[in-house]
Amino acid sequence: MDKIVRINMTDRSTRIETVPEAWAGLGGRALTSTIVANEVPPTCHALGPNNKLVFAPGLLSGTAAANSGRISAGAKSPLTGGIKESNAGGTAAKMLAKLGIQALIIEGQPKDDEWYSVHVTKNAITIAEEKELVGAGNYCLINQVQARYGLAVGVIAIGPVGEMKMLTANISVADPDSRIRSIGRGGLGAVMGSKRIKFISIDDTGTPPVMPKDGPKFKEAARLFAKTLLDHPVSGQGLPTYGTDVLVNILNEAGGLPTRNFTSGQFDGHDKISGETMHATIVARGGSPTHGCHAGCQIQCSQVYLDKEGKYLTSGFEYETIWGMGANCCIEDLDDIAEADHVMDDIGADSIETAVMFGVAMEAGVLKFGDGKEVVRMLRDEIGKGTPLGRVLGGGAAHVGRSFGIVRVPVVKNQGIPAYDPRAVKGIGVTYAMGTMGADHTSGYSIATNILNVGGHVDPLSKVGQVELARNLQIATAAIDSTGMCLFIAFPALDIPECLSSLIDMINARYGIALTGDDVTALGKSVLKLERQFNLAAGLSKEHDRLPEFFNYEAIPPHNVMWDFTPEELDAFWDF
Amino acid sequence: MDKIVRINMTDRSTRIETVPEAWAGLGGRALTSTIVANEVPPTCHALGPNNKLVFAPGLLSGTAAANSGRISAGAKSPLTGGIKESNAGGTAAKMLAKLGIQALIIEGQPKDDEWYSVHVTKNAITIAEEKELVGAGNYCLINQVQARYGLAVGVIAIGPVGEMKMLTANISVADPDSRIRSIGRGGLGAVMGSKRIKFISIDDTGTPPVMPKDGPKFKEAARLFAKTLLDHPVSGQGLPTYGTDVLVNILNEAGGLPTRNFTSGQFDGHDKISGETMHATIVARGGSPTHGCHAGCQIQCSQVYLDKEGKYLTSGFEYETIWGMGANCCIEDLDDIAEADHVMDDIGADSIETAVMFGVAMEAGVLKFGDGKEVVRMLRDEIGKGTPLGRVLGGGAAHVGRSFGIVRVPVVKNQGIPAYDPRAVKGIGVTYAMGTMGADHTSGYSIATNILNVGGHVDPLSKVGQVELARNLQIATAAIDSTGMCLFIAFPALDIPECLSSLIDMINARYGIALTGDDVTALGKSVLKLERQFNLAAGLSKEHDRLPEFFNYEAIPPHNVMWDFTPEELDAFWDF
Repeated sequence: MDKIVRINMTDRSTRIETVPEAWAGLGGRALTSTIVANEVPPTCHALGPNNKLVFAPGLLSGTAAANSGRISAGAKSPLTGGIKESNAGGTAAKMLAKLGIQALIIEGQPKDDEWYSVHVTKNAITIAEEKELVGAGNYCLINQVQARYGLAVGVIAIGPVGEMKMLTANISVADPDSRIRSIGRGGLGAVMGSKRIKFISIDDTGTPPVMPKDGPKFKEAARLFAKTLLDHPVSGQGLPTYGTDVLVNILNEAGGLPTRNFTSGQFDGHDKISGETMHATIVARGGSPTHGCHAGCQIQCSQVYLDKEGKYLTSGFEYETIWGMGANCCIEDLDDIAEADHVMDDIGADSIETAVMFGVAMEAGVLKFGDGKEVVRMLRDEIGKGTPLGRVLGGGAAHVGRSFGIVRVPVVKNQGIPAYDPRAVKGIGVTYAMGTMGADHTSGYSIATNILNVGGHVDPLSKVGQVELARNLQIATAAIDSTGMCLFIAFPALDIPECLSSLIDMINARYGIALTGDDVTALGKSVLKLERQFNLAAGLSKEHDRLPEFFNYEAIPPHNVMWDFTPEELDAFWDF
Repeated sequence: MDKIVRINMTDRSTRIETVPEAWAGLGGRALTSTIVANEVPPTCHALGPNNKLVFAPGLLSGTAAANSGRISAGAKSPLTGGIKESNAGGTAAKMLAKLGIQALIIEGQPKDDEWYSVHVTKNAITIAEEKELVGAGNYCLINQVQARYGLAVGVIAIGPVGEMKMLTANISVADPDSRIRSIGRGGLGAVMGSKRIKFISIDDTGTPPVMPKDGPKFKEAARLFAKTLLDHPVSGQGLPTYGTDVLVNILNEAGGLPTRNFTSGQFDGHDKISGETMHATIVARGGSPTHGCHAGCQIQCSQVYLDKEGKYLTSGFEYETIWGMGANCCIEDLDDIAEADHVMDDIGADSIETAVMFGVAMEAGVLKFGDGKEVVRMLRDEIGKGTPLGRVLGGGAAHVGRSFGIVRVPVVKNQGIPAYDPRAVKGIGVTYAMGTMGADHTSGYSIATNILNVGGHVDPLSKVGQVELARNLQIATAAIDSTGMCLFIAFPALDIPECLSSLIDMINARYGIALTGDDVTALGKSVLKLERQFNLAAGLSKEHDRLPEFFNYEAIPPHNVMWDFTPEELDAFWDF
């Protein structure tokens, strides 16, 4: 990867640059955050001409390393007002890496109301006016783009929600089966919409495979690395069998499954939406309980979920979505949730933000708790069509809270809190509060150690050790997010020493360098601090590193625990 | 004034306390801000149980001092997220003062869904369940409450917008003619709604007049003070004749009349909505071009505006409202704007926030620029009834901006920028940026010196002297807002030395103390710093002391000027 591609949407020009020395050795999140921090004015309007949308494959993208297919997107977030990185699987990361593109930077903004598409090949970057696919859902769009350019073409796109610049808008990435992977959080789809790019298509025809500097060393490290993924019970057994939805029963048992808009930690209907039930349903209908979101995935936590008639309904059907529409909205019908997932993928709405939003909307009386059919209707006919109610709901949880004067609004830095109650699993609460991304479980997944006993055990109900746990996980995550690796490699990495060492060996063999574990930690630290600096300059002060007030005075059953960290205890997170 | 009344809405208890020593000598804004800063957790949810809503008459309320009838309300604002004081005329300030109530503090929040009213008399504070008037507009409500308790009863109330906790909600105060004065800004009506109080009625029967400690000295100072109001051309001639709407032609001439959602500084239709036109219209229809918002007002900038059939339409028809619906929304029919003003008073929506919001909504294509009939319909049938579109619009300018992904959103700290373009009148821009209240012209009215040549002249188009001007005006305003005085006394106070000295003499004679001009300045400084401290602790860092980005890159005609202060220049505001 030796070039930076800049696309200026103000004058529709493109520029190819060599990689500046300071960006050498950076990939994924480290690179998107560096570019955003260096080039985006922190107080700019996130949907204005001065924000930039950056796509970057990871350090190991394009290689034969297992699970190295994540693509990062970064920008100032219109949802949080701070820096944002979000990543997804699919085919785009590998293609960009093969094309030698270390980062694709979209700048400026058209002054007219036209829509555009960007086509990337070995020979050219082409910006074209797009009329045909404006308004199209992502499923249709991916099919049409692949009909236009060939089945193997990579697609990065926004649905109608992104076109309408709603704050729940995600960016969709086509996977190897032309299904949808989501750069979900922080409203990055609205940023892409503000650039008026409906889709980016990538054709890597004629590019050679990415060749490591030291082939044999890479191969050996990759083999060892892959073995650790298979050897660990979470990445080797739990996730492949049940998908991430394996967590429903586990979190319910732990009393940390936020239910009915975060008023309980247990859901009576948990069995109906559990990974076990999903697995049985998929098998009974002839779907596939295992599926990978990118070539080279060894974990295969995705699935192909069919409806009662045996027709494809959804894929990448995640625990957080199922929790959010399930326990949080009290919907017990997994088919309704799967259909909602399908529609969210199609219209391009982040399933976490949207599900948290529906919990708040139900509390506001907009619809009834448990009404899955109405959720699907509102997704399709209100949000997807931008009706006035759709404009309320499409703004996310905090927006609905403000619209209706609701106090119990589970957000941090304006972004919805996912799937794990911070009162009952305190380590994740620290991650939610302190994370540079707003509430985001993936930024420091303490569930591993608090609940799954991966990387040791820290009692989820005690404050002891949580700040350290969240800090260490966030540092490690910032580094992993820079490699192009799926975050689930963290499970073996926390328990099997060879996982991390072989990962570093792969990077060293790929680039002919000699990183140590300390270098990786230092990278993670520097990414977090860079992001934090941007946030402070954007006006997200330490007072924004807090959970919403209601967690401080509402105890959650069954443990009847409240959130009880002092500001000083939380701020110690940044002592590194 | 010797007591503090606390009303706890959680358990519907009341408590009467003696005034703490630290609060002696504080009134109006100084007192509401002190209580909010001392007792409200800065990071609490503004609509949750831990916010408090404080009402306080000013230091001179209840006396015979001219223009001393303003009542202050304070709380954490659900709109800005910071501290808020807003004040209005009407009869309530005088009545509270006569009842000896220095502050009325509403705490807590009912856990049920009932509505309540509060009745205040010499003998008791009574909280009662209220069913009959729930949902009523303010005009009907005031009539009904006065039918219940007597025509002379004071009323502080919220309309449907406050009941629905929309962020544009104001608090209405009945004036001597049972018409409506508004505690307009910052969504304080939503805070009152969150306490589930529909109205507070005040009966001062049986209370003696407020007697100054030194009657003769007070009388002499009051006479001199009143004379300065009459002697100054703005308070003695301009405002009484044309009302505040006298400013339309003046600001248009200066190129600082924000037009079509802040894209020009001049409005072709300015003559049709000017104070001169309004005056002629009122006279022709047999209305009254002069009217006072409280007993003892000598400026009489209000009016009684009749419709074409000679029926009462509105009163307190202010420049900022007429600008906002007029130039900003390109509505040229003064009757449409007057009807919109009537409806906003009735449903209880801040006319500035609402007008700025409509400018953004028109830019978003929700309705057409210039369509006054549709504005009135949306006020009545959408916002007033809480339809989905009403929930979008009722959230204010920033909320509509977020709903539709609009970039040109004129707000500071989430609050709409009023009536004076900060690029063409740079002193007011500094006030908007730095004010503790969010964008608020009344917090440091530089127009006086930039445009009206009151208190000297500072070139509105140059940066020179603006920070000092805005700072000095904000300090003085914080002090004036603490006296119960109408802000328009600032015009003579800036030009006629006897105005301020007689004001201080009145306070000294009222309380038997010996304040100097320096003491008053010190009070203003301490109020601002206290408010700033609250805001910082609430998460409003210096990055929030900025104008929206578009002012930095969009030049406004006719002067084609941009906003060009550096962060450092602005931050120097706080060097005092």
